[in-house]
Amino acid sequence: MPLETPGTTVGVVGGGQLGRMLGEAATPLGIDLVVSDPTPDAPAAPAVRDQVVGDFDDEATIRELGERADVLTYEIELADPDALERVSEATGTPVHPAPETLRTIQDKLVQKRRLQEAGVPVPDFQQVDSAEDLRAALEELGYPAMLKAREGGYDGRGNVPVESPEEVDEAFAAIDGPAMVEAFVDFERELAVMGCLGDGERDTFPVTETIHEAEILRETVSPARTTPEVRERAREVVRDVLDVMDGRGVFGVELFEADGEILLNEIAPRPHNSGHWTIEGCHTSQFEQHLRAVTGLPLGTTERRAPTVSKNILGDVPDGERWRARLDGVESVLARDRAALHWYGKREVYRLRKMGHVTLVGDGETVGGAADGTVGESAGEALLEEVRDATEPLTFVE
Amino acid sequence: MPLETPGTTVGVVGGGQLGRMLGEAATPLGIDLVVSDPTPDAPAAPAVRDQVVGDFDDEATIRELGERADVLTYEIELADPDALERVSEATGTPVHPAPETLRTIQDKLVQKRRLQEAGVPVPDFQQVDSAEDLRAALEELGYPAMLKAREGGYDGRGNVPVESPEEVDEAFAAIDGPAMVEAFVDFERELAVMGCLGDGERDTFPVTETIHEAEILRETVSPARTTPEVRERAREVVRDVLDVMDGRGVFGVELFEADGEILLNEIAPRPHNSGHWTIEGCHTSQFEQHLRAVTGLPLGTTERRAPTVSKNILGDVPDGERWRARLDGVESVLARDRAALHWYGKREVYRLRKMGHVTLVGDGETVGGAADGTVGESAGEALLEEVRDATEPLTFVE
Repeated sequence: MPLETPGTTVGVVGGGQLGRMLGEAATPLGIDLVVSDPTPDAPAAPAVRDQVVGDFDDEATIRELGERADVLTYEIELADPDALERVSEATGTPVHPAPETLRTIQDKLVQKRRLQEAGVPVPDFQQVDSAEDLRAALEELGYPAMLKAREGGYDGRGNVPVESPEEVDEAFAAIDGPAMVEAFVDFERELAVMGCLGDGERDTFPVTETIHEAEILRETVSPARTTPEVRERAREVVRDVLDVMDGRGVFGVELFEADGEILLNEIAPRPHNSGHWTIEGCHTSQFEQHLRAVTGLPLGTTERRAPTVSKNILGDVPDGERWRARLDGVESVLARDRAALHWYGKREVYRLRKMGHVTLVGDGETVGGAADGTVGESAGEALLEEVRDATEPLTFVE
Repeated sequence: MPLETPGTTVGVVGGGQLGRMLGEAATPLGIDLVVSDPTPDAPAAPAVRDQVVGDFDDEATIRELGERADVLTYEIELADPDALERVSEATGTPVHPAPETLRTIQDKLVQKRRLQEAGVPVPDFQQVDSAEDLRAALEELGYPAMLKAREGGYDGRGNVPVESPEEVDEAFAAIDGPAMVEAFVDFERELAVMGCLGDGERDTFPVTETIHEAEILRETVSPARTTPEVRERAREVVRDVLDVMDGRGVFGVELFEADGEILLNEIAPRPHNSGHWTIEGCHTSQFEQHLRAVTGLPLGTTERRAPTVSKNILGDVPDGERWRARLDGVESVLARDRAALHWYGKREVYRLRKMGHVTLVGDGETVGGAADGTVGESAGEALLEEVRDATEPLTFVE
């Protein structure tokens, strides 16, 4: 199909930072984006052709996207798979990844069952619909464990650790709805792999180590500081995960490494925070790759350019407060060689809100010597120190 | 100054491909762009906050930009320095680079005189205001030589080679206005360096080799396939050029290499086609650097990531025709590892119009061994072959 202007239009449900970074990747490819978001002038707005204001699950809004776009996708799991399916049928506009895949992933219990059936290694889990269910399940799985709402959680919301039998009632009351409980995985580290499904193609990006605190992603290190065997196994598991997914797009797959084994943690059917490092760290970013995939263009190489770390800029304001977002200290990041700033354009900051991120790229030469992973490890170590140092002065001011 | 949303707004006179690529670089920094261009929905429009429709030299249009922006800049030399100066005075919005520098550069005779005074090596030249002047000048400078309109030329327009005394009358008639004539430089190769002036900082990007045909840039190769000494001398000359410039921003400086010496060819007070390779090839692109410079942020490192080549996508339609722009063969580029497509979003194509470009990045490892330039040279050779191969199927179709 010839490239022309106006060219392919992609409708994106969601206009947050992921929509913004999709927009940054779209114009070089000659792709126009239209996003939908309930917040007028959402983060993506200045980087895309147009924004439709409307809720993520509002069918009239999705319908408008479907009528304007050649293909529909979503950057948030709160998109409504039923509405997407109906709009796709009514407008003839395809949806990628498939709404059925979104539906499977939205329900963590259905997701885990489906993956387990397909032979993907997952932690032990059980369905729980009441405090009694939870107590019974934990007699089998043992304490501690993680209680998870089946739907709607993200950034750790909807996840409640249960340490002892005394905590069962309170934990279930906190969720108060359909849930699942998962055996606690005593992991050495957390890993993530961006998988991608193209038009008859399947690929994975290099393995990233993810560092969480209070269940919110703080930092990534690529290559992950583990053995080449574990990294290879992680990509293998993600290839199996991709086989369960329908439609095209990138998928953020979070993993546990425990005793040298890989266990699946969570899947996101979209670009993911753990893949932001690919903008500078790989020849093709996860955002460009997602656009290539959903529009049916050939996938780009997933090759890493150099060891790369990233660190999120999170709201550091007092709990419960909402401030106009004003970040001090960015000169420290901008003056650092090979550090890249990504500001998400959010007008308000609250505690732990994701406001931006900083990527730091290592020396290309280091990769050259890193065939066995060793040099990569120490490069990651030093880079992590450096990005922490560069971002240390960042603070939101009133 | 804290980073916030809405943040710094940059007003850009011109909304072509340079404005578009500035837009792609702006959102990660939290910078909003407003561009002005006479063509509604200009190439930059989908990548920026807003476009004002108006001529490059229309003062009311520039005034609107000046009122909406924190700083004014331009991506085309057709911007009017007098209007910029008046708007700046009326609105208090600074202009970078300084209008006086734009004025100096717009007049090729004034530009060359000013640079010569500052000790920058330039080809021999003379002012010519008539065919008689031209004939007299060429008795001194010798044939062949290049007659250049003092103002308004770009992509070779306004430049007329004069091979012999018989051609003098016709050559001057083709220009028919204030002109200068320059001794023909029998160069080995053409080089280009992007220079940058920040807030109290001065830097240069690595030297690029530029390959022209019929005076239109076709390809770039970085590192340039010349000696480290010549490359160092080129950057030194560009540092001297920067000393003559006022205000902040990036400057595209085109050079001749002749007998191991460097001579200045032309300057553009803005991002330049010869610097497009920096998007993938350097840690900071010329577009990000220009935005950092004009807004007074610290400059980014100019370090190259890896050997990099680029090739322009030019209109290949019959002379005199204007087609709706539809480019066939892009799959060949997209399927090539480490090739990046940049489509400029122009709706019409005519012969030799710049419609996009393709960048191809080499292996990071190669740079590691290239301290003496030798490995880099051969890498550039192979990359050039490869980008020619990848872009060979590109053709505009009716």
